[in-house]
Amino acid sequence: MDKVKVERLLINYKTLEDFKQFQAYGNQEESMLRDLENELVEENSESPFYGIYIGNTLVARMSLYRRSKKYDHYFNPPQDYLVLWKLEVLPEYRDRGYGKLMVEFAKQFNLPIKTNPKLETNEFWEKMGFEAASYNLERDFGENPYIWMPEGVREAVQPPVSRAKEQHEDEEKAN
Amino acid sequence: MDKVKVERLLINYKTLEDFKQFQAYGNQEESMLRDLENELVEENSESPFYGIYIGNTLVARMSLYRRSKKYDHYFNPPQDYLVLWKLEVLPEYRDRGYGKLMVEFAKQFNLPIKTNPKLETNEFWEKMGFEAASYNLERDFGENPYIWMPEGVREAVQPPVSRAKEQHEDEEKAN
Repeated sequence: MDKVKVERLLINYKTLEDFKQFQAYGNQEESMLRDLENELVEENSESPFYGIYIGNTLVARMSLYRRSKKYDHYFNPPQDYLVLWKLEVLPEYRDRGYGKLMVEFAKQFNLPIKTNPKLETNEFWEKMGFEAASYNLERDFGENPYIWMPEGVREAVQPPVSRAKEQHEDEEKAN
Repeated sequence: MDKVKVERLLINYKTLEDFKQFQAYGNQEESMLRDLENELVEENSESPFYGIYIGNTLVARMSLYRRSKKYDHYFNPPQDYLVLWKLEVLPEYRDRGYGKLMVEFAKQFNLPIKTNPKLETNEFWEKMGFEAASYNLERDFGENPYIWMPEGVREAVQPPVSRAKEQHEDEEKAN
Protein backbone atom coordinates (compact mmCIF):
# COMPACT_ATOMS: atom_id res chain seq x y z
CA MET A 1 0.00 0.00 0.00
CA ASP A 2 3.04 2.33 -0.03
CA LYS A 3 1.91 4.33 -3.07
CA VAL A 4 -1.73 4.62 -2.05
CA LYS A 5 -2.84 8.08 -0.98
CA VAL A 6 -6.06 9.96 -0.45
CA GLU A 7 -6.37 13.11 -2.52
CA ARG A 8 -8.79 15.94 -3.13
CA LEU A 9 -10.77 15.35 -6.32
CA LEU A 10 -11.01 18.07 -8.92
CA ILE A 11 -14.20 18.95 -10.75
CA ASN A 12 -13.75 18.05 -14.42
CA TYR A 13 -15.34 15.80 -17.00
CA LYS A 14 -13.06 12.85 -16.19
CA THR A 15 -13.87 12.93 -12.47
CA LEU A 16 -17.58 13.21 -13.18
CA GLU A 17 -17.36 10.28 -15.58
CA ASP A 18 -15.41 8.27 -12.95
CA PHE A 19 -18.19 8.98 -10.45
CA LYS A 20 -20.65 6.98 -12.58
CA GLN A 21 -18.91 3.79 -11.41
CA PHE A 22 -20.14 4.45 -7.86
CA GLN A 23 -23.53 3.31 -6.63
CA ALA A 24 -24.40 6.56 -4.90
CA TYR A 25 -24.19 8.59 -8.13
CA GLY A 26 -27.13 10.95 -8.07
CA ASN A 27 -28.41 14.46 -7.62
CA GLN A 28 -25.16 15.84 -6.24
CA GLU A 29 -23.03 14.65 -9.14
CA GLU A 30 -25.55 15.77 -11.73
CA SER A 31 -25.64 19.20 -10.14
CA MET A 32 -21.83 19.40 -10.37
CA LEU A 33 -21.98 18.37 -14.02
CA ARG A 34 -24.56 21.06 -14.80
CA ASP A 35 -22.52 23.69 -12.95
CA LEU A 36 -19.46 22.70 -14.97
CA GLU A 37 -21.34 22.74 -18.29
CA ASN A 38 -22.81 26.14 -17.46
CA GLU A 39 -19.42 27.46 -16.38
CA LEU A 40 -20.67 28.13 -12.86
CA VAL A 41 -17.64 26.30 -11.55
CA GLU A 42 -14.20 26.35 -13.10
CA GLU A 43 -12.75 23.18 -14.52
CA ASN A 44 -10.31 21.58 -12.08
CA SER A 45 -11.59 23.53 -9.09
CA GLU A 46 -11.77 21.53 -5.87
CA SER A 47 -14.78 19.30 -5.33
CA PRO A 48 -16.13 18.27 -1.92
CA PHE A 49 -14.83 14.77 -2.74
CA TYR A 50 -11.65 12.96 -1.79
CA GLY A 51 -10.56 9.71 -3.36
CA ILE A 52 -7.92 7.11 -4.07
CA TYR A 53 -6.55 6.48 -7.55
CA ILE A 54 -4.88 3.23 -8.54
CA GLY A 55 -3.09 4.22 -11.71
CA ASN A 56 -5.67 6.24 -13.60
CA THR A 57 -8.67 4.58 -11.95
CA LEU A 58 -10.66 6.20 -9.16
CA VAL A 59 -11.28 3.22 -6.87
CA ALA A 60 -12.65 4.89 -3.74
CA ARG A 61 -14.26 8.19 -2.84
CA MET A 62 -16.01 10.07 -0.06
CA SER A 63 -17.50 13.52 0.31
CA LEU A 64 -16.41 15.70 3.21
CA TYR A 65 -17.92 19.01 4.21
CA ARG A 66 -16.92 21.29 7.05
CA ARG A 67 -20.13 22.44 8.71
CA SER A 68 -20.22 25.54 10.87
CA LYS A 69 -20.55 25.46 14.64
CA LYS A 70 -23.83 27.32 14.33
CA TYR A 71 -25.43 24.19 12.84
CA ASP A 72 -23.89 21.82 15.36
CA HIS A 73 -26.50 19.77 17.25
CA TYR A 74 -24.26 16.76 17.79
CA PHE A 75 -21.27 17.79 19.87
CA ASN A 76 -20.44 19.36 23.21
CA PRO A 77 -19.11 22.00 23.20
CA PRO A 78 -20.74 23.03 19.87
CA GLN A 79 -18.06 23.37 17.21
CA ASP A 80 -17.27 23.09 13.53
CA TYR A 81 -17.50 19.49 12.42
CA LEU A 82 -17.13 17.38 9.30
CA VAL A 83 -20.02 15.71 7.53
CA LEU A 84 -18.77 12.59 5.77
CA TRP A 85 -20.94 10.89 3.15
CA LYS A 86 -20.81 8.68 0.08
CA LEU A 87 -17.82 6.69 1.34
CA GLU A 88 -17.57 3.91 -1.23
CA VAL A 89 -14.91 1.56 -2.57
CA LEU A 90 -15.48 -0.09 -5.96
CA PRO A 91 -16.34 -3.80 -5.44
CA GLU A 92 -13.17 -5.20 -7.04
CA TYR A 93 -11.00 -3.04 -4.77
CA ARG A 94 -12.57 -3.92 -1.43
CA ASP A 95 -10.88 -5.69 1.52
CA ARG A 96 -7.62 -3.86 0.93
CA GLY A 97 -8.06 -1.27 3.68
CA TYR A 98 -8.96 1.62 1.35
CA GLY A 99 -12.13 2.46 3.28
CA LYS A 100 -10.13 2.57 6.51
CA LEU A 101 -7.52 4.79 4.87
CA MET A 102 -10.22 7.25 3.80
CA VAL A 103 -11.75 7.43 7.28
CA GLU A 104 -8.32 7.90 8.86
CA PHE A 105 -7.71 10.72 6.40
CA ALA A 106 -10.94 12.41 7.55
CA LYS A 107 -9.98 12.01 11.22
CA GLN A 108 -6.66 13.78 10.76
CA PHE A 109 -8.46 17.16 10.49
CA ASN A 110 -9.03 16.58 14.21
CA LEU A 111 -12.62 17.78 14.01
CA PRO A 112 -15.63 15.75 15.13
CA ILE A 113 -17.20 13.78 12.28
CA LYS A 114 -20.81 12.88 11.59
CA THR A 115 -21.89 10.31 9.03
CA ASN A 116 -25.15 8.56 8.17
CA PRO A 117 -24.16 5.04 7.14
CA LYS A 118 -26.33 2.26 5.80
CA LEU A 119 -27.45 0.03 8.67
CA GLU A 120 -25.49 -2.94 7.32
CA THR A 121 -22.20 -1.04 7.65
CA ASN A 122 -22.59 -0.12 11.35
CA GLU A 123 -19.92 -2.65 12.30
CA PHE A 124 -17.33 -1.02 10.02
CA TRP A 125 -17.96 2.38 11.61
CA GLU A 126 -17.68 0.95 15.09
CA LYS A 127 -14.32 -0.56 14.16
CA MET A 128 -13.31 2.91 12.97
CA GLY A 129 -14.05 4.30 16.46
CA PHE A 130 -17.43 5.82 15.61
CA GLU A 131 -20.50 5.40 17.78
CA ALA A 132 -24.24 5.58 17.13
CA ALA A 133 -25.50 9.03 18.11
CA SER A 134 -28.46 9.11 20.50
CA TYR A 135 -31.51 9.28 18.27
CA ASN A 136 -33.35 12.59 18.16
CA LEU A 137 -36.47 12.68 15.99
CA GLU A 138 -36.42 16.27 14.79
CA ARG A 139 -32.71 16.24 14.11
CA ASP A 140 -32.35 12.78 12.63
CA PHE A 141 -35.63 11.72 10.97
CA GLY A 142 -34.73 8.58 8.98
CA GLU A 143 -31.00 8.90 9.55
CA ASN A 144 -28.72 6.45 11.27
CA PRO A 145 -26.20 9.00 12.59
CA TYR A 146 -22.78 7.81 13.64
CA ILE A 147 -20.27 10.20 15.17
CA TRP A 148 -16.58 10.28 15.93
CA MET A 149 -15.07 12.67 18.44
CA PRO A 150 -11.46 13.69 18.95
CA GLU A 151 -10.09 13.98 22.49
CA GLY A 152 -12.00 16.44 24.69
CA VAL A 153 -15.26 16.39 22.72
CA ARG A 154 -18.44 14.77 23.98
CA GLU A 155 -21.79 14.04 22.44
CA ALA A 156 -24.44 16.73 22.90
CA VAL A 157 -27.40 14.92 24.36
CA GLN A 158 -30.74 16.46 25.17
CA PRO A 159 -32.23 15.20 28.43
CA PRO A 160 -34.40 12.22 27.40
CA VAL A 161 -37.51 13.48 29.21
CA SER A 162 -37.64 16.80 27.40
CA ARG A 163 -36.87 14.95 24.19
CA ALA A 164 -39.87 12.68 24.65
CA LYS A 165 -42.02 15.65 25.56
CA GLU A 166 -40.99 17.65 22.50
CA GLN A 167 -41.56 14.65 20.33
CA HIS A 168 -45.06 14.30 21.67
CA GLU A 169 -45.89 17.96 21.11
CA ASP A 170 -44.55 17.80 17.61
CA GLU A 171 -46.59 14.75 16.84
CA GLU A 172 -49.69 16.53 17.98
CA LYS A 173 -48.88 19.31 15.55
CA ALA A 174 -48.74 16.76 12.74
CA ASN A 175 -52.40 15.87 13.30
CA MET B 1 -59.14 -2.71 -1.33
CA ASP B 2 -62.36 -1.49 0.30
CA LYS B 3 -61.34 -2.27 3.87
CA VAL B 4 -57.77 -1.02 3.59
CA LYS B 5 -57.04 2.18 5.49
CA VAL B 6 -54.03 4.10 6.67
CA GLU B 7 -53.93 4.67 10.42
CA ARG B 8 -51.76 6.30 13.04
CA LEU B 9 -49.59 3.72 14.79
CA LEU B 10 -49.50 3.60 18.58
CA ILE B 11 -46.32 3.10 20.57
CA ASN B 12 -46.55 -0.25 22.32
CA TYR B 13 -44.65 -3.53 22.43
CA LYS B 14 -46.68 -5.07 19.61
CA THR B 15 -46.01 -2.17 17.21
CA LEU B 16 -42.32 -2.19 18.05
CA GLU B 17 -42.19 -5.93 17.45
CA ASP B 18 -44.05 -5.47 14.13
CA PHE B 19 -41.44 -2.89 13.10
CA LYS B 20 -38.73 -5.58 13.13
CA GLN B 21 -40.21 -6.96 9.90
CA PHE B 22 -39.20 -3.77 8.09
CA GLN B 23 -35.76 -3.30 6.55
CA ALA B 24 -35.28 0.23 7.87
CA TYR B 25 -35.54 -0.86 11.52
CA GLY B 26 -32.84 1.00 13.37
CA ASN B 27 -31.91 3.78 15.73
CA GLN B 28 -35.32 5.44 15.71
CA GLU B 29 -37.21 2.28 16.65
CA GLU B 30 -34.70 1.33 19.34
CA SER B 31 -34.99 4.78 20.82
CA MET B 32 -38.79 4.41 20.97
CA LEU B 33 -38.40 1.00 22.64
CA ARG B 34 -36.05 2.45 25.26
CA ASP B 35 -38.40 5.38 25.91
CA LEU B 36 -41.28 2.93 26.38
CA GLU B 37 -39.27 0.67 28.69
CA ASN B 38 -38.13 3.66 30.73
CA GLU B 39 -41.69 5.03 30.86
CA LEU B 40 -40.64 8.22 29.08
CA VAL B 41 -43.56 7.69 26.71
CA GLU B 42 -46.91 6.25 27.65
CA GLU B 43 -48.00 2.97 26.17
CA ASN B 44 -50.38 3.52 23.25
CA SER B 45 -49.42 7.14 22.77
CA GLU B 46 -49.18 8.22 19.15
CA SER B 47 -46.00 7.43 17.24
CA PRO B 48 -44.72 9.41 14.27
CA PHE B 49 -45.65 6.36 12.14
CA TYR B 50 -48.68 5.60 10.03
CA GLY B 51 -49.40 2.19 8.61
CA ILE B 52 -51.76 -0.32 7.04
CA TYR B 53 -52.94 -3.45 8.83
CA ILE B 54 -54.25 -6.48 7.01
CA GLY B 55 -55.99 -8.36 9.78
CA ASN B 56 -53.53 -8.19 12.63
CA THR B 57 -50.44 -7.78 10.43
CA LEU B 58 -48.74 -4.46 9.86
CA VAL B 59 -47.94 -4.67 6.14
CA ALA B 60 -46.85 -1.09 5.36
CA ARG B 61 -45.60 1.90 7.28
CA MET B 62 -44.15 5.37 6.92
CA SER B 63 -43.00 8.07 9.29
CA LEU B 64 -44.41 11.56 8.96
CA TYR B 65 -43.25 14.64 10.82
CA ARG B 66 -44.57 18.17 10.58
CA ARG B 67 -41.56 20.46 10.47
CA SER B 68 -41.85 24.11 11.34
CA LYS B 69 -41.68 26.91 8.78
CA LYS B 70 -38.56 28.22 10.51
CA TYR B 71 -36.63 25.18 9.25
CA ASP B 72 -38.05 25.36 5.73
CA HIS B 73 -35.33 25.64 3.06
CA TYR B 74 -37.30 23.84 0.36
CA PHE B 75 -40.46 25.81 -0.38
CA ASN B 76 -41.57 29.25 -1.47
CA PRO B 77 -43.14 30.87 0.45
CA PRO B 78 -41.48 29.23 3.49
CA GLN B 79 -44.06 27.22 5.41
CA ASP B 80 -44.66 24.22 7.62
CA TYR B 81 -44.06 21.03 5.68
CA LEU B 82 -44.09 17.27 6.17
CA VAL B 83 -40.99 15.12 6.22
CA LEU B 84 -41.87 11.63 5.02
CA TRP B 85 -39.44 8.76 5.59
CA LYS B 86 -39.26 4.99 5.99
CA LEU B 87 -42.10 4.34 3.54
CA GLU B 88 -42.00 0.59 3.15
CA VAL B 89 -44.36 -2.22 2.20
CA LEU B 90 -43.49 -5.78 3.25
CA PRO B 91 -42.33 -7.77 0.19
CA GLU B 92 -45.28 -10.18 0.05
CA TYR B 93 -47.75 -7.25 0.08
CA ARG B 94 -46.24 -5.21 -2.74
CA ASP B 95 -47.88 -4.34 -6.08
CA ARG B 96 -51.25 -3.86 -4.45
CA GLY B 97 -51.17 -0.06 -4.36
CA TYR B 98 -50.45 0.20 -0.62
CA GLY B 99 -47.45 2.49 -1.13
CA LYS B 100 -49.57 4.78 -3.28
CA LEU B 101 -52.31 4.78 -0.64
CA MET B 102 -49.79 5.86 2.00
CA VAL B 103 -48.44 8.71 -0.11
CA GLU B 104 -51.97 9.88 -0.95
CA PHE B 105 -52.73 9.87 2.75
CA ALA B 106 -49.73 12.12 3.38
CA LYS B 107 -50.80 14.50 0.60
CA GLN B 108 -54.24 15.04 2.08
CA PHE B 109 -52.77 17.22 4.85
CA ASN B 110 -52.29 19.68 1.97
CA LEU B 111 -48.80 20.64 3.15
CA PRO B 112 -45.67 20.41 1.01
CA ILE B 113 -43.82 17.12 1.51
CA LYS B 114 -40.13 16.35 1.47
CA THR B 115 -38.70 12.86 1.28
CA ASN B 116 -35.26 11.33 0.69
CA PRO B 117 -35.87 8.17 -1.29
CA LYS B 118 -33.39 5.53 -2.38
CA LEU B 119 -32.21 6.31 -5.91
CA GLU B 120 -33.82 3.17 -7.30
CA THR B 121 -37.28 4.36 -6.23
CA ASN B 122 -37.14 7.75 -7.99
CA GLU B 123 -39.60 6.54 -10.62
CA PHE B 124 -42.21 5.68 -7.99
CA TRP B 125 -41.97 9.17 -6.49
CA GLU B 126 -42.26 10.80 -9.88
CA LYS B 127 -45.43 8.79 -10.54
CA MET B 128 -46.71 10.12 -7.22
CA GLY B 129 -46.25 13.69 -8.47
CA PHE B 130 -42.99 14.37 -6.62
CA GLU B 131 -39.99 16.01 -8.24
CA ALA B 132 -36.27 15.99 -7.53
CA ALA B 133 -35.36 19.11 -5.56
CA SER B 134 -32.53 21.22 -6.98
CA TYR B 135 -29.42 19.94 -5.23
CA ASN B 136 -27.89 22.22 -2.62
CA LEU B 137 -24.71 20.95 -0.98
CA GLU B 138 -25.03 22.44 2.50
CA ARG B 139 -28.70 21.56 2.77
CA ASP B 140 -28.67 18.15 1.16
CA PHE B 141 -25.24 16.49 1.62
CA GLY B 142 -25.76 12.87 0.56
CA GLU B 143 -29.53 13.17 0.28
CA ASN B 144 -31.64 12.62 -2.79
CA PRO B 145 -34.43 15.04 -1.88
CA TYR B 146 -37.78 14.71 -3.60
CA ILE B 147 -40.56 17.19 -2.95
CA TRP B 148 -44.27 17.49 -3.53
CA MET B 149 -46.10 20.80 -3.50
CA PRO B 150 -49.79 21.53 -3.24
CA GLU B 151 -51.35 24.23 -5.43
CA GLY B 152 -49.74 27.67 -4.98
CA VAL B 153 -46.43 26.46 -3.55
CA ARG B 154 -43.17 26.61 -5.49
CA GLU B 155 -39.70 25.29 -4.85
CA ALA B 156 -37.32 27.67 -3.05
CA VAL B 157 -34.25 27.84 -5.23
CA GLN B 158 -31.09 29.80 -4.49
CA PRO B 159 -29.62 31.53 -7.53
CA PRO B 160 -27.16 29.00 -8.99
CA VAL B 161 -24.26 31.48 -9.16
CA SER B 162 -24.32 32.35 -5.49
CA ARG B 163 -24.79 28.66 -4.74
CA ALA B 164 -21.63 27.76 -6.64
CA LYS B 165 -19.77 30.59 -4.94
CA GLU B 166 -20.84 29.55 -1.45
CA GLN B 167 -19.92 26.00 -2.21
CA HIS B 168 -16.45 27.06 -3.23
CA GLU B 169 -15.94 29.12 -0.09
CA ASP B 170 -17.11 26.29 2.08
CA GLU B 171 -14.76 23.91 0.38
CA GLU B 172 -11.89 26.22 1.08
CA LYS B 173 -12.84 26.19 4.72
CA ALA B 174 -12.66 22.40 4.72
CA ASN B 175 -8.98 22.50 3.79
